[in-house]
Amino acid sequence: MADQGAKEHTGGGKKDAMVTEITPQSEDFSRWYLDVVRRAELADYTDVKGCMAIRPYGYAIWELIVQGLDRRFKATGHVNAYFPLFIPSSLLMKEKEHVEGFAPQVAWVTRGGDEQLAEPLIIRPTSEVIIGTMYAKWIKSWRDLPVLINQWANVVRWEKVTRPFLRTTEFLWQEGHTAHETEPEAQDETLKILALYKEFAESELAMPVVDGEKSESEKFAGASKTYSIEALMGDGRALQAGTSHNLGQNFAKAFEIQFQGRDKTVQHVWTTSWGVSTRLIGALIMTHGDDSGLILPPRIAPHQVVIVPIPRGNWQETVLPKARELQAELIKAGVRVMLDDRDAYTPGWKFAEWEMRGIPLRMEIGPKDIEKSAVMVARRDTREKTSLPMDAIGPAVVQLLADIQQALYDRALKYREEHTQRVASYDEFKGLMEGRPGFLIAAWCGSQECEAQIKSETQATVRNIPFDRAPTGGGELPASDDPGSCIRCGRASSVEAWFAKSY
Amino acid sequence: MADQGAKEHTGGGKKDAMVTEITPQSEDFSRWYLDVVRRAELADYTDVKGCMAIRPYGYAIWELIVQGLDRRFKATGHVNAYFPLFIPSSLLMKEKEHVEGFAPQVAWVTRGGDEQLAEPLIIRPTSEVIIGTMYAKWIKSWRDLPVLINQWANVVRWEKVTRPFLRTTEFLWQEGHTAHETEPEAQDETLKILALYKEFAESELAMPVVDGEKSESEKFAGASKTYSIEALMGDGRALQAGTSHNLGQNFAKAFEIQFQGRDKTVQHVWTTSWGVSTRLIGALIMTHGDDSGLILPPRIAPHQVVIVPIPRGNWQETVLPKARELQAELIKAGVRVMLDDRDAYTPGWKFAEWEMRGIPLRMEIGPKDIEKSAVMVARRDTREKTSLPMDAIGPAVVQLLADIQQALYDRALKYREEHTQRVASYDEFKGLMEGRPGFLIAAWCGSQECEAQIKSETQATVRNIPFDRAPTGGGELPASDDPGSCIRCGRASSVEAWFAKSY
Repeated sequence: MADQGAKEHTGGGKKDAMVTEITPQSEDFSRWYLDVVRRAELADYTDVKGCMAIRPYGYAIWELIVQGLDRRFKATGHVNAYFPLFIPSSLLMKEKEHVEGFAPQVAWVTRGGDEQLAEPLIIRPTSEVIIGTMYAKWIKSWRDLPVLINQWANVVRWEKVTRPFLRTTEFLWQEGHTAHETEPEAQDETLKILALYKEFAESELAMPVVDGEKSESEKFAGASKTYSIEALMGDGRALQAGTSHNLGQNFAKAFEIQFQGRDKTVQHVWTTSWGVSTRLIGALIMTHGDDSGLILPPRIAPHQVVIVPIPRGNWQETVLPKARELQAELIKAGVRVMLDDRDAYTPGWKFAEWEMRGIPLRMEIGPKDIEKSAVMVARRDTREKTSLPMDAIGPAVVQLLADIQQALYDRALKYREEHTQRVASYDEFKGLMEGRPGFLIAAWCGSQECEAQIKSETQATVRNIPFDRAPTGGGELPASDDPGSCIRCGRASSVEAWFAKSY
Repeated sequence: MADQGAKEHTGGGKKDAMVTEITPQSEDFSRWYLDVVRRAELADYTDVKGCMAIRPYGYAIWELIVQGLDRRFKATGHVNAYFPLFIPSSLLMKEKEHVEGFAPQVAWVTRGGDEQLAEPLIIRPTSEVIIGTMYAKWIKSWRDLPVLINQWANVVRWEKVTRPFLRTTEFLWQEGHTAHETEPEAQDETLKILALYKEFAESELAMPVVDGEKSESEKFAGASKTYSIEALMGDGRALQAGTSHNLGQNFAKAFEIQFQGRDKTVQHVWTTSWGVSTRLIGALIMTHGDDSGLILPPRIAPHQVVIVPIPRGNWQETVLPKARELQAELIKAGVRVMLDDRDAYTPGWKFAEWEMRGIPLRMEIGPKDIEKSAVMVARRDTREKTSLPMDAIGPAVVQLLADIQQALYDRALKYREEHTQRVASYDEFKGLMEGRPGFLIAAWCGSQECEAQIKSETQATVRNIPFDRAPTGGGELPASDDPGSCIRCGRASSVEAWFAKSY
């Protein structure tokens, strides 16, 4: 029945015509990516260099990301607030490393209305500086701590080379900024958020990530320690998907964020900051997509199911009411479902269209299905088709969506495992980096010199130094049994790092 | 029992000490407003001129506003998207009236990173222009219409005089931008949204509003018609709380947004735009607040109930567990409830604090209440205290919150009715405008000359020309039986306008 259904329902050559608009991954992964972004109507270029418009379908994915994260932030005691877009340029200058890192990539406002500004304003590339000045006003006593604030906002970084979602001049993100009484509390917060990001990425985006500490040279400008989660994309390049920074007392000292402690002494707070952005949408596309387009994990899919009625005979009196019933059943079961009853398009066109847009499950219903009191469902990830009885359709679909979610995660994890290799010699390292992409795990002495040389010779960078697999890390570098000698210089190494070419 | 409880529970002089930090409304309404904003920690001034930081408590109110509106937009078929913050300055110039209206109040970005920009960018004061250029790309056929997109975003208008929430250089808002096949559809959309705003303001914010059409001189720059909802603040000034614009084909022509019609001819679309902003928080404060501070309608209150345990005897073993039980009961009943179990503060301090922050219901629980298996609840709006039995506390509180919501609306409506008067002579008009504030309804000939003269002589402006009270208006100006002669020039008038001094 499954295959018959497929033949019965699939339209003509339109499907092929559409799919060929997407460059195959094997031909040019980068063009494939841009084709998917454009064809699936996720985002579009604008008249503003480096800035994209996020189209409704792309934005609906972002809304689900926002909801999933916001729920987690609130469950861990965080609240949202909003701080100004502008930062007086003199403020940026206060934290030395921070200004060095960000000054080259900020946009400057020099005129407001008709007046030339006495002091130019910069547009926030990140908000440590402006938030720091407010915390200095708000925090007076240990009783005011911890401050656990998050902000959903747009930020601007003047980028030379941009790519939709992955690197744009303006992007949307969340930035958490917390202040604590003690150093260990700040470190706990930093790692708690990193674990939250990892759990979110893996359970909602079905995207396995490696969590660990960044090397000195890849640290956030002004941080004491930076941690990241790193994912492996379909072309074997790594992508930094989220970062969490322990800022020590660096910003507290630069902005005089002080409090009276339990012992009555005046002390500087300990701060953290952390963020993920619309980049996650790019990560989703490149983790799961295939030559037919997008594949969305059900938990993050704006529509989890699309129902396509087959227009045979007096379908508007027979098929359509039944399709509406199924839709109502699914909504009742908590499924995000869309009924595509447009009559200006053929079923074949719709199949290809929704496949390209990555909807996890397609449900077809025609006169024959109604006779059998069953519907045909097709999985986007495996293309498997099954017939499901119409009664109890809700629980069956919910189960199938959970299966798809898990299958996508398993597939991505398997891909990463197949593309991760431990290497012991530099020659092997160089050979593998030139050919088969992915992660290479290698001992590293920790020197910036070796790191820089490896990068210039192979394009690979230290993505991070992973924690033990324990869910919340623990904050200590992994006590590897014997990391061995540095892959590059041969000196004794204390850690193993994960290397990859990256976005 | 109620009064006894009050005496038993209320702390010492701390309460009075705090309340006196707020200037009485009768002394200086404007200072009262700023005191409430600051003391209730809704917003704070920043180092950036005219820009505020929205603090967590203020932002939590905004989140509830966003949720309430977003749900309504989606239920009426709208989707969200996101467009760039920047607009190339040449684009702004394309719609003549629009540029005249907005050019004097935009911020200019002239430098990015190290480079001077060849063409300066402006920061969006509103997004018709940038969205118009995208619609020109996206819309090709009547099949693509209507486009019903909304955006949640920050915008910047270079303001000389600012006030938290009411007028700030940067503010948060939503802006809907729709495109339609025909003129009547665009007009329907414009009025549908106006009705949505009115319903939202009245049922969620408990704020009665007058819906109607703006005069020619108060129209949005570039619109064919502008409609607004207007509310009356506690000092008798009107506040424009939301606007909906029928843009005709003005922007479609300026940005060449064209489509192939059903009859194959190429036509320009008809567009609308509409928005409300963080200004609504200012409106809330000034509609309901009193000399003790904020009063929040339950539907928009971040915490609807605060439970204050009374620390007597071994309260942590007796009172606290019971308070937690009540909290759990209320959460189960869908109530947003907060248990204030901080032991660094006295109950009296907490009562004053939460009163000042406008929490609709305060629940006190001490050893005596537990004996009686009842709790004392105090309404913020009437200060009435009642004892509620602990069992079935959920439904009782839900009912009480609904009563408060209604009572606040009724009170605000009564206030508006008491401060709205129909006048027939200009002397009466001037006399009333100098003394008792509020709305004045008067016949108006419709000339900009009379409007301007009335404004310069009395500071009053035409707020709008109201619709018939029918819920969805109808798009026709009210067919008043006999508007009479223009209040100013004596010529025959076709309409009655609502006049007021305004924010």
